[in-house]
Amino acid sequence: MKLTCHESNSIRIWAADGKSLSRVRSLGELLAVDHTAMHEQIEREMAKPTEAPVVAPVDDGQEVWAAGVTYLRSREARMEESDTADIYDKVYDAERAEVFFKGNGWRVRGPGQGIRVRRDSGWDVPEPELAIVINAHGQIVGYTVGNDVSSRSIEGENPLYLPQAKVYDGSAALGPAIELCDVDAMRSLPITMRIERDGSTVFEGETNTSELKRTPEELAECLTREMPFPQGVILMTGTCLVPDEQFTLTQGDVVTIGVGSLELSNPVVP
Amino acid sequence: MKLTCHESNSIRIWAADGKSLSRVRSLGELLAVDHTAMHEQIEREMAKPTEAPVVAPVDDGQEVWAAGVTYLRSREARMEESDTADIYDKVYDAERAEVFFKGNGWRVRGPGQGIRVRRDSGWDVPEPELAIVINAHGQIVGYTVGNDVSSRSIEGENPLYLPQAKVYDGSAALGPAIELCDVDAMRSLPITMRIERDGSTVFEGETNTSELKRTPEELAECLTREMPFPQGVILMTGTCLVPDEQFTLTQGDVVTIGVGSLELSNPVVP
Amino acid sequence: MKLTCHESNSIRIWAADGKSLSRVRSLGELLAVDHTAMHEQIEREMAKPTEAPVVAPVDDGQEVWAAGVTYLRSREARMEESDTADIYDKVYDAERAEVFFKGNGWRVRGPGQGIRVRRDSGWDVPEPELAIVINAHGQIVGYTVGNDVSSRSIEGENPLYLPQAKVYDGSAALGPAIELCDVDAMRSLPITMRIERDGSTVFEGETNTSELKRTPEELAECLTREMPFPQGVILMTGTCLVPDEQFTLTQGDVVTIGVGSLELSNPVVP
Amino acid sequence: MKLTCHESNSIRIWAADGKSLSRVRSLGELLAVDHTAMHEQIEREMAKPTEAPVVAPVDDGQEVWAAGVTYLRSREARMEESDTADIYDKVYDAERAEVFFKGNGWRVRGPGQGIRVRRDSGWDVPEPELAIVINAHGQIVGYTVGNDVSSRSIEGENPLYLPQAKVYDGSAALGPAIELCDVDAMRSLPITMRIERDGSTVFEGETNTSELKRTPEELAECLTREMPFPQGVILMTGTCLVPDEQFTLTQGDVVTIGVGSLELSNPVVP
Repeated sequence: MKLTCHESNSIRIWAADGKSLSRVRSLGELLAVDHTAMHEQIEREMAKPTEAPVVAPVDDGQEVWAAGVTYLRSREARMEESDTADIYDKVYDAERAEVFFKGNGWRVRGPGQGIRVRRDSGWDVPEPELAIVINAHGQIVGYTVGNDVSSRSIEGENPLYLPQAKVYDGSAALGPAIELCDVDAMRSLPITMRIERDGSTVFEGETNTSELKRTPEELAECLTREMPFPQGVILMTGTCLVPDEQFTLTQGDVVTIGVGSLELSNPVVP
Repeated sequence: MKLTCHESNSIRIWAADGKSLSRVRSLGELLAVDHTAMHEQIEREMAKPTEAPVVAPVDDGQEVWAAGVTYLRSREARMEESDTADIYDKVYDAERAEVFFKGNGWRVRGPGQGIRVRRDSGWDVPEPELAIVINAHGQIVGYTVGNDVSSRSIEGENPLYLPQAKVYDGSAALGPAIELCDVDAMRSLPITMRIERDGSTVFEGETNTSELKRTPEELAECLTREMPFPQGVILMTGTCLVPDEQFTLTQGDVVTIGVGSLELSNPVVP
Repeated sequence: MKLTCHESNSIRIWAADGKSLSRVRSLGELLAVDHTAMHEQIEREMAKPTEAPVVAPVDDGQEVWAAGVTYLRSREARMEESDTADIYDKVYDAERAEVFFKGNGWRVRGPGQGIRVRRDSGWDVPEPELAIVINAHGQIVGYTVGNDVSSRSIEGENPLYLPQAKVYDGSAALGPAIELCDVDAMRSLPITMRIERDGSTVFEGETNTSELKRTPEELAECLTREMPFPQGVILMTGTCLVPDEQFTLTQGDVVTIGVGSLELSNPVVP
Repeated sequence: MKLTCHESNSIRIWAADGKSLSRVRSLGELLAVDHTAMHEQIEREMAKPTEAPVVAPVDDGQEVWAAGVTYLRSREARMEESDTADIYDKVYDAERAEVFFKGNGWRVRGPGQGIRVRRDSGWDVPEPELAIVINAHGQIVGYTVGNDVSSRSIEGENPLYLPQAKVYDGSAALGPAIELCDVDAMRSLPITMRIERDGSTVFEGETNTSELKRTPEELAECLTREMPFPQGVILMTGTCLVPDEQFTLTQGDVVTIGVGSLELSNPVVP
């Protein structure tokens, strides 16, 4: 077995028999352990490409934000749940969009990872959304699938509770990939959601980004107008695809969201 | 184009359309630059596997040592060049081997990289050697090709000048790979050297590691007996393949050394 | 001049004539530059303790959150500015507190650094607050001074615009220090605010944390109930000290907030 | 207790009540542990300046080299121990100095740390030396005390064994500080050595750097002529102060070396 070292721009990549050993940072790591352990580590590394799970396509350095009331249906959904329905109404027609913080990148769940409902909430829903990827220059460079899991009971109790309804451990999922493309390629993408429970489908629906009241550019501009994001930012663009009022997300459910050619699936965990 | 992020043991690997972007450490790097620069960086990265040159298979953390007078011929070679021939004679037959420091890993040249002769030396030679790779436990885990470029004029002037004859910028080359194998696989390997100058071969020779007076284990034990190498160490094992006395290495020469199935080639640069 | 190196827990601290050179990470840094540059660097370092400005006592790893409607006055203040006054009313009396994201640590301004008003806002105020420091275990370990700069015009337009009214570049300041103390020491601290403009005081007021409707423990529990903060979190606890309706914060103003023995002062910059 | 954060050139230094907490890299470290552990860590840190032991003033990035036969006495010492006395004689008078590798910075022992003799050696001595500190530009920027512990029996057996006599675990000590000064300040420094065994002094001697046959500049030039040291290098300059032939260094001995105003003391450990 041949161990080679390749270097490009000061990054060294060790390879065994031509296969990259991405986790091996230095020869010293391999020579610090004994002969047997070294061969085991190399074999694990050579088998790795199929092992390494896909994770959320976001880093610690990106914040995740979301927009609300961007589709007709989501305005209506909120009117049902709130005494103060007109504040949603007003946003829908106002010049200023609604954006809110959804969490830092390190909290976001990737494909197959568990999402959660709050223990102090009684009515919870997933929200399938086109999530746009914005760079430090405010340019939209791609999109991914976003699941903006939300507590409707907490949000419905008072709009001032929105951060608690929207931001908690396991409330956001992104993935499986970023589709790098022009913003025009996002204007008419199918969005689907399927929720499975105990082997059967308990919700299934479809919409299209062409139903968006605001353009991705407009939402990106609203978010970045007064705040720099030196490592970029992810912005979920809202939804109109929500289950009926009697539905609430339950532990064990599996939520699968499709946007364009991407599909993100997450189980609900305790 | 799809950008995914894979994670294994906390190491995140970004990939575009399935090809690893090894130099991209985070999404933030891609989102910090503008749209065009991002696509250029991704394309460079995707093309990289064939671009990244093979470098010396050694890290900053390893010292490189060498052994001397381990073949009959090298004893004779040194007797010619030294007034004090008997000190080489004595080492050949002594219980204690001769080992000396050859340089730290970061100074070593890899395949195709330039080697050098000292400007204050008049008689210089490459030395083709089996270089054994020893781990922190003193175990021999593989070998590579070593070129122990030396100033015979400086060494010949006085044995106390050995460090100056052996250790200087461009005096050591290793590569192209580490052949991971049992020490028994090193006992009878052909060693060849060819030196080309202006298109013609000015030296060609061959020997075999079976001619070694001392075993690799014995040399490794001598080196590690009183000194720990927590990240391992490389030990060149000496040579008996040296050009005639009238030969001296010259800028522009290309030295190609083969050990077993490995071949290392280096030009001599100013 | 004597250069020594001290080591504790693998951290090496270089010192010259007994004064710590905190920025000098290694001898190599000093030896890489020439003789004159080395002496200049050492002299800068030795003079540093008085040079190094105090910055916001928060790291990239902490999020900063804030609570609202925690004092009687702030409930009233918001009733004036909103059509939907009752949602503030309801929070004041509800079991669930209102908490919202205020920004990540790296965005926060420290003592003397500029705070900002949004360019798309017409009515802006500083909010002087007790900011509690909560560790990963949910324990309150100290406090600092917080300035929760806010756009009243944007918040007043619609409660759903709260994140835009509260989170933007230059909207948060913390400092100058964290007073490490028991939570009981925070129950009756004077909070003062003074705003100077063109050399005269345009606002001056005082309140006390004893006026808080909710305890720090209650607010901390609300924030950490469903979300872990592995590196801790800072929570501003709301205010009741706001200038009159005709006041708006203007470029050049200097806002000085005192909480207990701490005082934080920031100019308003463009 | 007040915790402040100071920043200079992007380095953040946390301080409690004005005392630097040099090991505390971030607030996150303090907030990740519980209240009690946090206070214990801060208290340890505040007490640290007196705790942190002085270590060898050298980093991993510097190599340590040494020169030989630079004083009349050392030439004589070696003549006694070697059959091939004339090779030492010749170096003393030759144009080219003798320099040899003594070890990498991370192997070097600091004040109070144990030095060693090889288990396979029967005759061992400390060598008290002026150690000059050379920067990447070849400039001499200061000096420290060096102890070049050596096996005279191994070196005496054969000059080719010099690396084994000179380079092994515990063979080099440096410290306690680097005296930054002009090279002229090194030309006439007293060098003293005292060896204590079981409470009494078994060797005591003194010499002066004015006895050096070669200048520090000449030795530095010889070392750096054909080899760059991008992080600088330490060069021990040889000795003429050696105990009598019947003396050999023994476990438990304490060796104290003075050069100029610096004094380095090390026990001999197993």
